[in-house]
Amino acid sequence: MGGERRLIAALSRIFGPPPSAVRCGIGDDTAILAPEAAQDLLWTIDTLIEGVHFDLKYTPLRSLGWKSLAVNLSDIAAMGGQPQYALLALGWPPRRALHQALELAQGMQDVAQEFGVAVIGGDTVAAPAGLTLSLTVLGQVAPGRALRRDGAQVGDDIYVTGPLGLAAAGLELLRHGLALPDEMKIPLMEAFLRPWPQIAAGRLLASQNLATAAIDVSDGVASDLDQICQRSGVGAVLAAAALPIPRPVHEVAGLLGAEPVDLALKGGEDYQLLFTAHPDKKGLVQKAFLKAGLPAPRGIGTIVRGSGIRLQYDDKELELAGTGFDHFPQASINDS
Amino acid sequence: MGGERRLIAALSRIFGPPPSAVRCGIGDDTAILAPEAAQDLLWTIDTLIEGVHFDLKYTPLRSLGWKSLAVNLSDIAAMGGQPQYALLALGWPPRRALHQALELAQGMQDVAQEFGVAVIGGDTVAAPAGLTLSLTVLGQVAPGRALRRDGAQVGDDIYVTGPLGLAAAGLELLRHGLALPDEMKIPLMEAFLRPWPQIAAGRLLASQNLATAAIDVSDGVASDLDQICQRSGVGAVLAAAALPIPRPVHEVAGLLGAEPVDLALKGGEDYQLLFTAHPDKKGLVQKAFLKAGLPAPRGIGTIVRGSGIRLQYDDKELELAGTGFDHFPQASINDS
Repeated sequence: MGGERRLIAALSRIFGPPPSAVRCGIGDDTAILAPEAAQDLLWTIDTLIEGVHFDLKYTPLRSLGWKSLAVNLSDIAAMGGQPQYALLALGWPPRRALHQALELAQGMQDVAQEFGVAVIGGDTVAAPAGLTLSLTVLGQVAPGRALRRDGAQVGDDIYVTGPLGLAAAGLELLRHGLALPDEMKIPLMEAFLRPWPQIAAGRLLASQNLATAAIDVSDGVASDLDQICQRSGVGAVLAAAALPIPRPVHEVAGLLGAEPVDLALKGGEDYQLLFTAHPDKKGLVQKAFLKAGLPAPRGIGTIVRGSGIRLQYDDKELELAGTGFDHFPQASINDS
Repeated sequence: MGGERRLIAALSRIFGPPPSAVRCGIGDDTAILAPEAAQDLLWTIDTLIEGVHFDLKYTPLRSLGWKSLAVNLSDIAAMGGQPQYALLALGWPPRRALHQALELAQGMQDVAQEFGVAVIGGDTVAAPAGLTLSLTVLGQVAPGRALRRDGAQVGDDIYVTGPLGLAAAGLELLRHGLALPDEMKIPLMEAFLRPWPQIAAGRLLASQNLATAAIDVSDGVASDLDQICQRSGVGAVLAAAALPIPRPVHEVAGLLGAEPVDLALKGGEDYQLLFTAHPDKKGLVQKAFLKAGLPAPRGIGTIVRGSGIRLQYDDKELELAGTGFDHFPQASINDS
């Protein structure tokens, strides 16, 4: 048996046998699924590239496996759905021992099991220039209930489901080897290395029809909120004082000479949900999260007429739009 | 608007508006689909990496776009399905002009339109180490009718839907700049640069229940047939004299001092379908293809007891198994 087949066999053992709705998993030309009737399908793909999205100097392979699948599940969460299946396209550097790929796969299986997802197939190729991971995930949601980006209305409240800036501060901690006590380090590293997709919060918002729009915080609140605003044809005002910025983020900002608000709004990778809701639903939103045993979402601003995002900061108002991560910041394109 | 958003907007224009069963296409966290009731879903992912799967020195970007989607559609063809939707994860080198990405996308749209497929979303990232393309495709097939790899039976005939070796010879032609008359060059370059996924043949085999097993010829007949044999627990005997090897393949083999049979069996990338059928269906298979206006499949061998593949060549018999492309030929893995 060649190395490629041995690798696929070893991956199959880690991911385990597929659930019964999967008529055929790893080992054929495609996976075969019997979808549930009367559900909408949610479908996403994400690629992570070594040196762009992660650095193996400070990212253990098992954490990378967790994170690579978690960020895809987060996209399903942002639509209010339940993720079900994943396919993995693994580009593995031939110089790297193949058994390390199993650590990566184990990290994926950790998060898959946590959220009831089955990894049912994929593709393995050699990638001499560096590890690349593409994952595609299918999920489902009740028909017409998906949380889209384009439904925000003037007057809506803007919420976030949890703390901001931890992942960005965690990255800085790892990158610069900052000295911090363990009780500060742990939540920062957890947030950066093992983000928690907000599946439960998303499903709650969709099933109870609580949100007018939603997105997951991947590029940073400033950029991600701008996506909602652009798609919805509205603007937004955020209150800096209302942002849930935990103490370790302040500590890291202090060590770096940075503003905590910048880490919270521009850092990205928090994978919290950012959503908008009609002001009449304020009480319902809080009650629903409380009843579901989820942390109360934090109101951080308001949707307004116009475009762009303004930040109320002390007694100033700053423009924020367009400050998130852009993979091609300098590029021009003839888009006529 | 940042470069990334301009790129996504330009890609959206090339791929056009999604069909009506797509509730949400490009621009949200995931695509939203309303699947057809009572159909099985077929789902695949493939990654192409610069320097491993393609060389931009002799692969025009529009051809690369065609090929990258075509090889995914070929996986759906091998299952007997109709491809419907695709997501593209594009890793684009920042040093390369962004408008070139639109040529690539146009090549994808060419093949998408040819086969009734809609590209409805994806992901764009910077890939400094080289262009990477991951595509995931969803298709459908009547429940239980998918063509799997594990159904070949002892005594079955082995067929291939079209010529072998053209793509491998085409690659050698381009790589070495071989001198050949145009009427030879064109089919070789077509086969290598713009492979034609055998959707019609696959659908015919599935809908009329003609095949016991099928696979597409991506790694080479020797390796791909070995996949069927291993999954089905059988062996195979091929007749070299029966292999459909067109004249341009003989010409290229002559120039390289290679055996045409080697290009046909080990070269790969032909994207013909290789399938097995009960010997009672011999007449039905030929009649069905004729009636559908498809080229008659060529019988190239027989499924036998045991394992491995033997090639009858003149009056010799050679062992063939395990000779296809392996991404990790030297790798060991602790698969206990």
